[in-house]
Amino acid sequence: MAPRVLICSTIVWAHDDVKALLGDIADVVYVDSPDRKSFLEEFKPGGKYEGTVGIYRENESAKKIGIFDKELIDGLPSSVKWIAHNGAGYDPVDVHACKARGIYLSNTPGAVDDATATTALYLIISTLRQYSVAERSLRALKWKPQGLNARTHDVTGKTLAILGLGGIGTRLAHLVRSFPMRVIYHSRHKNPDAPDFCEYFENVEEMLAQTDVLSVHVPLRKETVGLVGEKWIRALKPGAIIINTARGKVIDEEAMIRALEDGHLAAAGLDVFPNEPEVNPRLLDFPQVTLLPHMGTENQDTQRQMEVRALTNLKDFLTTGMGKDLVIEFKVKQKL
Amino acid sequence: MAPRVLICSTIVWAHDDVKALLGDIADVVYVDSPDRKSFLEEFKPGGKYEGTVGIYRENESAKKIGIFDKELIDGLPSSVKWIAHNGAGYDPVDVHACKARGIYLSNTPGAVDDATATTALYLIISTLRQYSVAERSLRALKWKPQGLNARTHDVTGKTLAILGLGGIGTRLAHLVRSFPMRVIYHSRHKNPDAPDFCEYFENVEEMLAQTDVLSVHVPLRKETVGLVGEKWIRALKPGAIIINTARGKVIDEEAMIRALEDGHLAAAGLDVFPNEPEVNPRLLDFPQVTLLPHMGTENQDTQRQMEVRALTNLKDFLTTGMGKDLVIEFKVKQKL
Repeated sequence: MAPRVLICSTIVWAHDDVKALLGDIADVVYVDSPDRKSFLEEFKPGGKYEGTVGIYRENESAKKIGIFDKELIDGLPSSVKWIAHNGAGYDPVDVHACKARGIYLSNTPGAVDDATATTALYLIISTLRQYSVAERSLRALKWKPQGLNARTHDVTGKTLAILGLGGIGTRLAHLVRSFPMRVIYHSRHKNPDAPDFCEYFENVEEMLAQTDVLSVHVPLRKETVGLVGEKWIRALKPGAIIINTARGKVIDEEAMIRALEDGHLAAAGLDVFPNEPEVNPRLLDFPQVTLLPHMGTENQDTQRQMEVRALTNLKDFLTTGMGKDLVIEFKVKQKL
Repeated sequence: MAPRVLICSTIVWAHDDVKALLGDIADVVYVDSPDRKSFLEEFKPGGKYEGTVGIYRENESAKKIGIFDKELIDGLPSSVKWIAHNGAGYDPVDVHACKARGIYLSNTPGAVDDATATTALYLIISTLRQYSVAERSLRALKWKPQGLNARTHDVTGKTLAILGLGGIGTRLAHLVRSFPMRVIYHSRHKNPDAPDFCEYFENVEEMLAQTDVLSVHVPLRKETVGLVGEKWIRALKPGAIIINTARGKVIDEEAMIRALEDGHLAAAGLDVFPNEPEVNPRLLDFPQVTLLPHMGTENQDTQRQMEVRALTNLKDFLTTGMGKDLVIEFKVKQKL
């Protein structure tokens, strides 16, 4: 009998893709559990998900069964060997619980780079030029806000600092190169694949002192919570702008709000927040802030590419025993 | 005595620039007339503007004295020889009245290209990804609009049609090349300086049939009023998007609204309107439309560059008898 794969999402962009990738090699079952308890029940003998080997997971599934935290993962049967998460950031899956249970976890790097970097570019233009408040002014039938051009700037010629030059950061570097912006970056390690026009700063505060726009592209991990805090924010050039399309918790939100209040930061462009879908209401009070509801990869072209990439990890696991996008925690040697 | 130059604007970005360019060669006078009548009075013998040879004109001056229409130009004395308009589009100055009076007119091409093309790029991202409605949804405390990603697209790989490949259109072509978008264009004549990746279409309807996003970059002239009308809009690929950062009257607004209503157009991104600062209230009803209050060049970096370019035309006229940016109506042979 073909190994069972559970599609853990009620959103599927292209059923044809599921069929093409898994139709011949797997017994594909679609999730239909109303809550976590009944979800876990169905893995038991006689249940609809009994014997599941691979799980395709999309964030939308959290609405009914919650995120893949330790409790959920510990409740899965030993038949489960691979979780293919749809998304670059896999903080909604407890990777340590997966390792402890011997369940591999993959994400979808690459597939998200273009759409997320485009979102960052949008926020860069919107904040430097102050187009969010300009549109609100027009829609309030007030035409242009007074004096806006004295507070706004061209994108061209400004210095963009990229914090975390991985796939998304590198894609953003290429997009802004066309203006050009000057691109500087800091990562834990110098990126050997960085485009040659990107200047590496080992010392993050030296970089921040030269920064007009800081764009954050580090994953959420225990060590990156609050990474952009009071000290780094104050190290930014006065009048700088912060862009975040990574994860809300990477920035100390209170420190950022203080810097917006006292004018050290000229603006912020945020696609992510610490407790989504909640948004700190104080952010809504700043006219100079552009706020998006985590739209980084939200469009049909990228959604489908991400789905294909996640499903391909399952396919590769089933046919070769290993998927291409195994997350980094499984690649580096560390204690289980 | 040094020839008199009138700075016809109460907004001056850098008085140092005025001094550096004109301080040694002109008697610089600043406008302070409360209305058109007193403005024209001051050109008479004994008036503050008597003997003015060159006028620097900024759109802000229209608030008090109105645009430079035939009446105003016919009211200027024969001493006036050059009007240096600050802006690429010079439709607020009656060029034919200028020619009839023997007054040269210059504009500021080049200086506006980067900022205006950046505005068009912003509108392209905003409409393809539907970020304007997404931000309104967040600000109404509703987080993401439902089902938005099924109606939205990546920028990368889409086809951008540029109507009018002059300075702004060419700059936009370079900016979107980084994604890349496919760039196709139509101009009255094939542009010999077009980047080699831009495909020329002599037949505009053939171009429109392949268009995902149409961006308008033609100047407002008698022949371009309503240029993008019912016929061309219907020739667009269904689901296409229109971007306008040129002039509102170049598009037949009623035809565009009909196409938004029946879904032939998926969206529109508009920085300009037929009767600014008025905005047709029907446009506010479409959630999928991004609306900016003519922000194309509104930022201090570009404003200063435009000011310098306009003042340089006056300087060059005073020192050499000719400014670099004489508008095209003076360059082509035509009946006065």
